[in-house]
Amino acid sequence: MNIGIIGLGLIGGSFALAAKKYSIGSILFGSDQKREHFDEAMHMGIVDYELNHENYADMDVIILAIPVDTSLEVASSILDKINENTLLIDAGSTKTAICKLLRLHPKRNQFLATHPIAGTEFSGPSAAYADLFLDESQIICESQKTRPDLLEWAVQWFRNMNMQVNEMDPEAHDKHIAYVSHLSHISSFMLGKTVMEKEKDERAIFDMAGSGFRSTVRLAKSSPDMWTPIFKQNQKNITKVLGEYITNLQDFKSLLENNSYDHLYSQMKEINAIKTILAGIKNNKTTNK
Amino acid sequence: MNIGIIGLGLIGGSFALAAKKYSIGSILFGSDQKREHFDEAMHMGIVDYELNHENYADMDVIILAIPVDTSLEVASSILDKINENTLLIDAGSTKTAICKLLRLHPKRNQFLATHPIAGTEFSGPSAAYADLFLDESQIICESQKTRPDLLEWAVQWFRNMNMQVNEMDPEAHDKHIAYVSHLSHISSFMLGKTVMEKEKDERAIFDMAGSGFRSTVRLAKSSPDMWTPIFKQNQKNITKVLGEYITNLQDFKSLLENNSYDHLYSQMKEINAIKTILAGIKNNKTTNK
Repeated sequence: MNIGIIGLGLIGGSFALAAKKYSIGSILFGSDQKREHFDEAMHMGIVDYELNHENYADMDVIILAIPVDTSLEVASSILDKINENTLLIDAGSTKTAICKLLRLHPKRNQFLATHPIAGTEFSGPSAAYADLFLDESQIICESQKTRPDLLEWAVQWFRNMNMQVNEMDPEAHDKHIAYVSHLSHISSFMLGKTVMEKEKDERAIFDMAGSGFRSTVRLAKSSPDMWTPIFKQNQKNITKVLGEYITNLQDFKSLLENNSYDHLYSQMKEINAIKTILAGIKNNKTTNK
Repeated sequence: MNIGIIGLGLIGGSFALAAKKYSIGSILFGSDQKREHFDEAMHMGIVDYELNHENYADMDVIILAIPVDTSLEVASSILDKINENTLLIDAGSTKTAICKLLRLHPKRNQFLATHPIAGTEFSGPSAAYADLFLDESQIICESQKTRPDLLEWAVQWFRNMNMQVNEMDPEAHDKHIAYVSHLSHISSFMLGKTVMEKEKDERAIFDMAGSGFRSTVRLAKSSPDMWTPIFKQNQKNITKVLGEYITNLQDFKSLLENNSYDHLYSQMKEINAIKTILAGIKNNKTTNK
């Protein structure tokens, strides 16, 4: 089984390592726009050979794990070059644009749009690890457009890696993910900005920042190369969600200014119900490696 | 050494367990407004005896680990009741009000205002553990007002528990802590609110929420009983910091609406410098137990 990985960062590298761990006989081919990432991935044994345009047709499956704008630029030409039984899987954090782009491609049925719901704030091959996806959700979109034999193989492959496969419409995916992922990243980036602007005396941050701050600001370490294109592609949903978040913060501030502490109390009490929701989300993994 | 703990929640319970672990010969007396918390703490071996008004005078040290509004109500009368060598330590998340309240108390020099920078989103005796404070910062305020022998003992006691002791002015404490703790809690509560309001189909949250969401929304599980009084006491600082956070979010939204992606990119790149700051904060503890 020849597996090609385009983009040897956290996601692509972890797919390579998971394939090696959970699928005996996997031979890994990889490429990365950054030469040093490819060299690092080779050195670390994440991939075995270099992937290039010439050997695309030798792959059984190719995973596209690069920023979502670059995916749009290269996906069509990759499909053009693969053989008639290769499956191309994209793993980006937005799904509408790529599904729309490829909808009329003659090899559309050799493409599967996915979003593995896993990640850390780290990037590059050194951030990759085989169990990043363990027990995590793998969203697949428009699976009825993928050739049944290829789809069946892919779903089994994901399950072998212990991923939970869930189907979702691309537009629904982009709308929901704005709430449960994209907003978290923006709130964290802006928290980091607010604190850094005012806490020029970094010593105070060192002494006073506990686990709460570390936890809420963690995502502010995320890669702008990855996130700028996501924000661009999901601009409409994110703008809406961000507006709702700002309104909630403004309401909270008004309650505080008006000394409406009973109201603040009952609001927080209601929000505590997030416990029940989070308890339903598998929480047995560390968020850092 | 008789140690009294008023409030057997996460902080008080963890102080009791740390005292037992790191100071041989500690005998723990405890009390809690909630009878079931006291019973639980006794059952778990967190404390050995019940603390009450009659035996305050038998304590060598008393830790006040209750909501910051209740601390203001009881601190004076506790000082009235202790013997001439007892030290009263408060461990609340705001420091200005308690220092102001006790400034003219005849036993002011038997009081030490502290803020151990440690916590989780859990509460009650079952959340307590002996190493909550390990390598964390213990802020002390106005230590020159505490009797030198009592201060010296307390600092050594904290160090025995592996806490890092740092002095800070009460007003400076309340200003800085609004940035690095109180704001994190509000951003997390409002994130939880925004998602819960719109994601009525909880299934989507279950399937799509990854570690990023879990991490940023974790603090929304925090106790309103503890946090409402903190927000009240630190209202002025928090209102200001919250205003700055909202402005940053609004600016980010405007950039997004105007498709200013280069600007968004460079802003996120700058915020990535938080890595350097966080690297200076000891990050070798899990945020959950």
